[in-house]
Amino acid sequence: MKNQLEQLTREQLAEVDRQFSIYSSGAAEIIPEEELKHKIAKSVLLDKPLKIKLGLDPSAPDVHLGHTVVLNKLRQFQDNGHVIQLIIGDFTGKIGDPTGKSTARKQLTDEEVQHNAQTYFQQFGKVLKMEKIELHYNSKWHSKLHFEDVINLAGKITVARLIERDDFEERLALKKPISLHEFFYPLMQGYDSVVLENDIELGGTDQHFNILMGRHFQEKFGKEKQVAILMPLLEGLDGVEKMSKSKNNYIGIDEPPNDMYGKAMSIPDELMPKYFELATDFSLDEIQKIQHEVKNNILHPRDAKMLLGRTIVRIYHGQEAAEEAELRFKSVFQKGELPTDIPAVHWQGSRSIAVIDLLVTFDLQSSKSEARRMIQNGGIKINGEKIMDIHAVITITNDLIIQVGKRIYRQLKCN
Amino acid sequence: MKNQLEQLTREQLAEVDRQFSIYSSGAAEIIPEEELKHKIAKSVLLDKPLKIKLGLDPSAPDVHLGHTVVLNKLRQFQDNGHVIQLIIGDFTGKIGDPTGKSTARKQLTDEEVQHNAQTYFQQFGKVLKMEKIELHYNSKWHSKLHFEDVINLAGKITVARLIERDDFEERLALKKPISLHEFFYPLMQGYDSVVLENDIELGGTDQHFNILMGRHFQEKFGKEKQVAILMPLLEGLDGVEKMSKSKNNYIGIDEPPNDMYGKAMSIPDELMPKYFELATDFSLDEIQKIQHEVKNNILHPRDAKMLLGRTIVRIYHGQEAAEEAELRFKSVFQKGELPTDIPAVHWQGSRSIAVIDLLVTFDLQSSKSEARRMIQNGGIKINGEKIMDIHAVITITNDLIIQVGKRIYRQLKCN
Repeated sequence: MKNQLEQLTREQLAEVDRQFSIYSSGAAEIIPEEELKHKIAKSVLLDKPLKIKLGLDPSAPDVHLGHTVVLNKLRQFQDNGHVIQLIIGDFTGKIGDPTGKSTARKQLTDEEVQHNAQTYFQQFGKVLKMEKIELHYNSKWHSKLHFEDVINLAGKITVARLIERDDFEERLALKKPISLHEFFYPLMQGYDSVVLENDIELGGTDQHFNILMGRHFQEKFGKEKQVAILMPLLEGLDGVEKMSKSKNNYIGIDEPPNDMYGKAMSIPDELMPKYFELATDFSLDEIQKIQHEVKNNILHPRDAKMLLGRTIVRIYHGQEAAEEAELRFKSVFQKGELPTDIPAVHWQGSRSIAVIDLLVTFDLQSSKSEARRMIQNGGIKINGEKIMDIHAVITITNDLIIQVGKRIYRQLKCN
Repeated sequence: MKNQLEQLTREQLAEVDRQFSIYSSGAAEIIPEEELKHKIAKSVLLDKPLKIKLGLDPSAPDVHLGHTVVLNKLRQFQDNGHVIQLIIGDFTGKIGDPTGKSTARKQLTDEEVQHNAQTYFQQFGKVLKMEKIELHYNSKWHSKLHFEDVINLAGKITVARLIERDDFEERLALKKPISLHEFFYPLMQGYDSVVLENDIELGGTDQHFNILMGRHFQEKFGKEKQVAILMPLLEGLDGVEKMSKSKNNYIGIDEPPNDMYGKAMSIPDELMPKYFELATDFSLDEIQKIQHEVKNNILHPRDAKMLLGRTIVRIYHGQEAAEEAELRFKSVFQKGELPTDIPAVHWQGSRSIAVIDLLVTFDLQSSKSEARRMIQNGGIKINGEKIMDIHAVITITNDLIIQVGKRIYRQLKCN
């Protein structure tokens, strides 16, 4: 494989470089880079598409911006004629958790798996060209394995290697139980690559160990080893944790334009460049220009963030919806209705709270009964919207604005 | 189960005690003793035989006295009407070693497994009533397990529990690789007990961990837990290592009477009581009487050992063969042909050696050519037998006697 680069014409070499620079942009890690280049070279030389694998958990089909980081990368491969292999990990899903301890890993029926796969598909269509995708359910091969095959598979990996995985090592050290079957999840993911003979596997950096299992087992089964492309994890709206549904810090790609725009506006300033890079279709040059302008006070950070919000809405709902969402946002938050010097208050509690409690917590009302009366009189607005229900519970977001009567404002800061 | 003992008549209670004392005699460990008593009680109360399991490795069918320690224990259960379940572990045998590293665990064909099982059977017939035995090949159930079942099985045990096994812990600490499939051997043995629903599993103390797996998995699958009866390991003729074919320190139960007798005579004196207890049909009372007489110089240790040799030959070849073997031994070693003050020489080398090298090593001849000439002249005897072949290679045993010419004697001491 080493001398494939030497066989290329100058034009072909340029093409290899062009693709390599696209695929590596934004990636946290490529293991190993050199092999990626050679794989591209082989593809160019033989005019044969590469096979790019992405594994999906069939139990959580709500797609958010965090997922689009790898989807956008896949789209780049698609745009250059390569083949995407989506693997629905339904075998694990159908087994559930044999210890019965994890409620997260509940057993799924065939119907649920099918339904969840459909849900993925409908959402992925916003990023990928779905008509060009290979879809696989890994139960197809895993369900055919017998005990003998499993022993054979297990014979190709050491216990020490598996324990190396971050969370296993930690749990062993803390004497937290690891069920032996958990050792099989990375094996399954690795064996998927043996069956698919894919050239590349994509995933977040948290998939580092599992994706290297694919390399390991492909080699043990005498196949060409896949290259791992690990994408950074996108922090959620809180700016701290990885974006996920369970943390309620996500922007779902199916959310309505106004919610999407509003949530984008609550992203901490320092995360903006990362969101531009990983969650929009802006080029690196464009992003650098924005950063430069913000840094030199040519562009106000708020305006940069509005561009981000508009862009995200435009990608998933189109240009018109993006403009409408921006207009609405402006009308609520920026039409001179708000003073420019709102005092900030800091919030570290739970992500949802009854409005009454919120008012009392920040001494905006002296008692719950007073707060209740104020709501009934129409004197309370949250983000510009009048609260009419005394039992209203709101979701805390960064920069959320509380208005009491005509003159009192507070802006919540969550970090 | 607790109050079964209370339901028994006085006569039945005595029967429980009688059986319990037989089964526990000579055992290194019973886990747990109380449950064994309750199992016997249930059997007596319901007049229902217990099921006693013994697992066999299909790759090493040469049965020696070391094996008879558990076989004798099984026979006691048979004599009291219980059912013996022999499990040929052919599933593992047919898989072989998936890493290809262990030559010991080579892959066996169906024919080899069958042949080895036959060989076991023919030999076991010298201790057990074979017509009353249940025979099982564990491939029958293991080969039917699918990946899903394996995951389910693996979900019932923790990694930490498996690592606890002595050799795993040591190998991990020394960073010696453990292939993941090795974790499955104890699981398989445990699952055998789930399928067989046996009451008791027998084995050597080196099977401690694996036999407790049977208890573990029976419980996890909602079955009554087996009791482990662990028998001591019989040291081989060297008095140090566990008797085994690979150490060449064994007495095979198929060996000819003279070899058996001669080997028995080479057992170190201090091991005699253990051999009497574990490898003969002598009662504890009889053994204590012999020990007492030896201690008080009523019985010469050599005569006690001759009784042991005679007994072992009698068990496997009958009374007549035992007497003949003793006569022959006496004619060679004791007919006044040997001086009573033979100098001992100590030997720590390999267990087989060319006679010529042996003579030179102990300075009994000054050179190899001289040694060769002495053999050709009929001047060399080993254990009373004239060596005629200058290329003769002999097997070293303790107390072996070398005679050079008419006057020079040496007796080998191996420990």
